[in-house]
Amino acid sequence: MPADNLIPDMTDAEFRDALAKVGDWMAGYRSRVGNMPVLSRAVPGQIEKALPQVAPVRGEPVEKWLKDLEQVILPAVTHWNHPGFMAYFGITASAPGILGEMVSSVLNVNGMLWKTSPALVELEQVVLRWLASAMGLPADWFGMITDTASTSTLVALAAAREAADLNVREDGLSSKPPLVLYCSQEAHSSVDKAGLVLGTGMQGIRHIPTDGEFRMNCDALREAIKNDIAQKRRPFAVVATVGTTSVTAVDPVQKISEVCREFGLWLHVDAAYAGTAAIAPEFRWALRGCDQADSLVTNPHKWLFTPIDCSVLFTRRPDQFRNAFCLVPEYLRTGAEGVVDLMDYSFQLGRRFRALKLWFVFRHFGTEGIAARIREHIRLAHELAGWIDSHPKLERLAPVNFSTVCFRVHPRGMDDEKDLERLNSGVIDKVNAAGEVFLSHTKVRGNYCIRVAIGNLQTSIERVRRAFDLICAAAEI
Amino acid sequence: MPADNLIPDMTDAEFRDALAKVGDWMAGYRSRVGNMPVLSRAVPGQIEKALPQVAPVRGEPVEKWLKDLEQVILPAVTHWNHPGFMAYFGITASAPGILGEMVSSVLNVNGMLWKTSPALVELEQVVLRWLASAMGLPADWFGMITDTASTSTLVALAAAREAADLNVREDGLSSKPPLVLYCSQEAHSSVDKAGLVLGTGMQGIRHIPTDGEFRMNCDALREAIKNDIAQKRRPFAVVATVGTTSVTAVDPVQKISEVCREFGLWLHVDAAYAGTAAIAPEFRWALRGCDQADSLVTNPHKWLFTPIDCSVLFTRRPDQFRNAFCLVPEYLRTGAEGVVDLMDYSFQLGRRFRALKLWFVFRHFGTEGIAARIREHIRLAHELAGWIDSHPKLERLAPVNFSTVCFRVHPRGMDDEKDLERLNSGVIDKVNAAGEVFLSHTKVRGNYCIRVAIGNLQTSIERVRRAFDLICAAAEI
Repeated sequence: MPADNLIPDMTDAEFRDALAKVGDWMAGYRSRVGNMPVLSRAVPGQIEKALPQVAPVRGEPVEKWLKDLEQVILPAVTHWNHPGFMAYFGITASAPGILGEMVSSVLNVNGMLWKTSPALVELEQVVLRWLASAMGLPADWFGMITDTASTSTLVALAAAREAADLNVREDGLSSKPPLVLYCSQEAHSSVDKAGLVLGTGMQGIRHIPTDGEFRMNCDALREAIKNDIAQKRRPFAVVATVGTTSVTAVDPVQKISEVCREFGLWLHVDAAYAGTAAIAPEFRWALRGCDQADSLVTNPHKWLFTPIDCSVLFTRRPDQFRNAFCLVPEYLRTGAEGVVDLMDYSFQLGRRFRALKLWFVFRHFGTEGIAARIREHIRLAHELAGWIDSHPKLERLAPVNFSTVCFRVHPRGMDDEKDLERLNSGVIDKVNAAGEVFLSHTKVRGNYCIRVAIGNLQTSIERVRRAFDLICAAAEI
Repeated sequence: MPADNLIPDMTDAEFRDALAKVGDWMAGYRSRVGNMPVLSRAVPGQIEKALPQVAPVRGEPVEKWLKDLEQVILPAVTHWNHPGFMAYFGITASAPGILGEMVSSVLNVNGMLWKTSPALVELEQVVLRWLASAMGLPADWFGMITDTASTSTLVALAAAREAADLNVREDGLSSKPPLVLYCSQEAHSSVDKAGLVLGTGMQGIRHIPTDGEFRMNCDALREAIKNDIAQKRRPFAVVATVGTTSVTAVDPVQKISEVCREFGLWLHVDAAYAGTAAIAPEFRWALRGCDQADSLVTNPHKWLFTPIDCSVLFTRRPDQFRNAFCLVPEYLRTGAEGVVDLMDYSFQLGRRFRALKLWFVFRHFGTEGIAARIREHIRLAHELAGWIDSHPKLERLAPVNFSTVCFRVHPRGMDDEKDLERLNSGVIDKVNAAGEVFLSHTKVRGNYCIRVAIGNLQTSIERVRRAFDLICAAAEI
């Protein structure tokens, strides 16, 4: 055994003591985060300078790590779990989600096979059926949890590529016609990245124009597909988006599905952000047509109060995922029948027990509680939109479909886009520097705008009003 | 705000109470896990039958989830964090690692950009330099943390593909010569999967024969490359393995690197399991030649006491990763200079704060403490090998390079492989059913064998002896 003078792993008593200390720090963080500056004020290199260049040779007590956590790490954290975090998409590590993550970490199971953790595999199936049912998706879809939407979309499009019946799995792409993938101009960059990884090249990714509400234009989609076929290229998949990252637009999934059926293409739906809004029945319209999709991704770590990472990939064609990925080496053959071995559905072998935290979230809030909070976030966004719309020097640039609002300061007579960008980016910088809220920007049809995304459970109407007032003050309007 | 009759997220007092309850459960689990059956005795469908088909409509108190965790989930867990877990690779969620995971979950940051969490990006750089230094790798390598080795290898080979100067990123693979990737017959299935995703097809993956100690044969590698070039195919990468999954063989990386240089190929090293053994100076030989690699993966969630998931990808050519993946959409442009935006190095945008747990592991144990424990695991494996070697009816089938031992029961006169497989798989099943240890199998040159992998911090010499005795008893030898 290790020499006596070396610190072993903690005893039960030491672990309980450390749990109490770390737990106290966590609860304290949760209570005081709302008073910290949301966007970190760290300068590049700050942490690197503050820490030693090499690891300690001898172990140190937990008090020392916690002190560094507080003094070195915390000032360099941008606080995503802050009620004033309104950049990108607002998210929440809810209490039940955190507790679920804690249980996962001590179990430390790897769910590559059913046998290596029946609980992981089966709880994942159960909880994803709960989610599909709560969202109004078909009950017989197969679901699996991945880390992020980037992975979900990559895996789905790999299955789509295999489903194109070109035998890519065996032959590779070299001898095949150029593959083409379609999404709207507003689609997330993860679609492009998936195409790059899969070997379509940028030349094999079509960004279809959108209509006045930033939704994919289906006529343009059909034309693009026909043109590619005429050029002897091989269309294989369309990615529709429900809640685009920039302005949360919803593509016409039903119509797109008809185009996909007409040309025999795989339909993948990126509902990473807005999919879970369908848990509130009045927002189920957003998923209209999605029952026709071949696969769909939605992220509980975005708008379902689950700590990062937790992305859900649903499919009605799990067989195509196995066709693309199943490759069982001898040392993993279990001979188990009638069970799901998750490694057969993805390029990833190892996987954490992520279903636990999602299960705890459902258990704590219930579907009514979840729906109420999603509804409240959307209400807050509409309140904000109302203030914007009634202000003469503010201009809203996109519809508020969910909990995200895109707008800009637009003083009368200032019409040069460069001037407007300078003004609005200056406003964002000033607001972010103040620390009470953190906003990001986007461009809408080339117009720079401020973007407020609401999604944290602790965000109150007062905080949203404060954001509005800060913006007006920064713009001197 | 939500109606009063709906459960909101927990108050501070409720969260502290729940933390105490969950913490108590976690510490209790850690204390009693050694007495539970390692391999779950669940039957397929057991959890699915025990839980409701739909999510609760109204929330439930934490006591109810914990009761289900104990009664429904736990019996269906295969206990990876158990001192008797000797299947696949033994792993540990150490106390500091668990505590780090807890802190990550409450911070809930997403490290896609430096700006979105300077602490995540910079602590990752610092801790990976600690790791590189502890392993004796070049100090100037760039490192990043991914979820699993499957992802690390996929990302590395995507960079390798781009580095082949075929402009795959822009054009795709269709018009290119068939790409070819090389690894040994003993390489991990994740290499094949990466090739499939990247579009080489199975036809573009060569499994090079190995020598008497299961190491890649460099002459055969060179011949295969020459043959592919003669056939107008395009070799682009070689994956060498340091610690193969089956028998923990170590490929001759130095020699392979010479072949790579000769033909201009990217060298990726899969040191997922054995890489961290180099933290003990006497095992640094295992990484000989790895300073010549273009990229290398090692998994702290395997043999560095860090909860799953935590895979580290090092490279000396980060520019090639950016060439393959950087694709910055407007809404993510930050204008920050001189900082690392991790999303530019991978297909993944979102990422958890995984560096914290690895930092806590280093802080708690120190490099000497880590080295002592790795050394101890290797000592235990050699003890076991000694007992096997001195037993007339046991036959060891591979060298013990690290902490894994491959052997079989081989009674005198039984020479039919089918009979031997039946005997040995029967022994494994019997031992696993008893519950004190969990073993897996592999095949070595077609011979079925028992595989004992030691890697849990709580595994004692007594537990290893018990495994040996159970095997002998099951085999009636």
